[in-house]
Amino acid sequence: MVRFSKGHGTENDFVLLPDPDGELDLTPARVAALCDRRRGLGADGVLRIVRWDALGDGPPPEPGVEWFMDYRNADGSIAEMCGNGVRVYARYLEHAGWLSGTELKLGTRGGVRTVRVAGEDVSVDMGPATVGDEGTASVDGQAFTGVAVDVGNPHLACVTDVPLQGLDLTRPPGHDPALFPHGVNVEFVSPLQGDEVAMRVHERGVGETRSCGTGTVAAVVAVLRHAGRDTGTVSVQAPGGRLRVTVENGTTVLHGPAVLVAHGELTPTWWAQV
Amino acid sequence: MVRFSKGHGTENDFVLLPDPDGELDLTPARVAALCDRRRGLGADGVLRIVRWDALGDGPPPEPGVEWFMDYRNADGSIAEMCGNGVRVYARYLEHAGWLSGTELKLGTRGGVRTVRVAGEDVSVDMGPATVGDEGTASVDGQAFTGVAVDVGNPHLACVTDVPLQGLDLTRPPGHDPALFPHGVNVEFVSPLQGDEVAMRVHERGVGETRSCGTGTVAAVVAVLRHAGRDTGTVSVQAPGGRLRVTVENGTTVLHGPAVLVAHGELTPTWWAQV
Repeated sequence: MVRFSKGHGTENDFVLLPDPDGELDLTPARVAALCDRRRGLGADGVLRIVRWDALGDGPPPEPGVEWFMDYRNADGSIAEMCGNGVRVYARYLEHAGWLSGTELKLGTRGGVRTVRVAGEDVSVDMGPATVGDEGTASVDGQAFTGVAVDVGNPHLACVTDVPLQGLDLTRPPGHDPALFPHGVNVEFVSPLQGDEVAMRVHERGVGETRSCGTGTVAAVVAVLRHAGRDTGTVSVQAPGGRLRVTVENGTTVLHGPAVLVAHGELTPTWWAQV
Repeated sequence: MVRFSKGHGTENDFVLLPDPDGELDLTPARVAALCDRRRGLGADGVLRIVRWDALGDGPPPEPGVEWFMDYRNADGSIAEMCGNGVRVYARYLEHAGWLSGTELKLGTRGGVRTVRVAGEDVSVDMGPATVGDEGTASVDGQAFTGVAVDVGNPHLACVTDVPLQGLDLTRPPGHDPALFPHGVNVEFVSPLQGDEVAMRVHERGVGETRSCGTGTVAAVVAVLRHAGRDTGTVSVQAPGGRLRVTVENGTTVLHGPAVLVAHGELTPTWWAQV
């Protein structure tokens, strides 16, 4: 019997596979079938919940770090990090009784992350965000000035007065290929009002998404910079929900809800055939 | 605890809620949340599995018909019938041990249907299909001649030599509003080769779908008529998989696979909040 859970963080959704002892034969084809929204369960990706010393292929375990987030994209490929994924993973550990206390260090292919569970809020240390050059994104011939922000992956975060709901993000925004030779995730962010902003995000290779953890961090770094600040805490309303980012002490922390929707078992005949 | 299963018939997918005694408080908002592909489980619709005498609101029970398919659309509204839904519903009854023998009569808001489970194949009597006038569908300025087929809902089934993979069905095909005042489902069907055809379908109010039970029936009726026949059995390859339709004795029977992917329980806190 293969057990699973389904969960999401601001509508960035995951199939979680509890596999503490690393016994699961998780092929790329099975990941793709699990994430298929019609012939499988459907998700943006799979989180295999495995003890680091049972991971098999992957970075060598670090002392004092019990769990590893083995994250796979919906196409079956391996991914390094996912801020919403880490938060939902931690929620599962809490549910399973595998979280002692409220804080854990979690192994990922992008490095060890510190995660805290505090009631409805689950937060993760996303590491430093590096501000780069200014650049331009274009949507339907309209140009938006943004700033490059590296959060382990490349972003162009554009603070704009243009009403976000009017933007057509069904196609990728234009960008300067010299600045982003491998493509870029693009955020459109309203100016800071109090400690709140709104955001829409177009993810490289995916399209517009309901939410994006690293994109939220990039948006907050850009909007603070736009307000002449290096540090602070900002709430970000994305289509999929509200996240909060604190920028200080040379790092960034992503806060928000992490929800488990259901728990169950895959049908053995289905698993055997995919 | 609210139990569920997830299943599909040629990638027309459903959340099944076993509720034999009619105890579930299934509001439209809960149906919509269950069908939401990111904040819920995700499906084209919900099948509540309930004994007819426990249905509550709905048509009065008929003697000898134990089970009723309480089908809801993804937006929470009530739907009458769904050929793939009936087939997946019967697969669940078999799984649960609630199917005695291989045949059952199933209540639906579209009338009582006869369903047969035979190994991987689950078939359902879809009732008569009525051929109407000829009409025209247009895609990107190209006109396709079709025939109106009523299978409880309206279809325009167009047999065409044009390669189906080249059709842009991202927008609804144009049709004659005088012939179909309430809109129409449109099928594009390759001519009969042996006993096989290929099909793509645009569902009214939905868009292109991976498969459509009534659309498959309409396609087979049209392609038989195109070949000068009133009866016969034809296999239909849709993007989501292969179905088979027999037209004879004044009725139509839809055959195909019905797959259960997983079984589980909803998180009580999630169910309480949606």
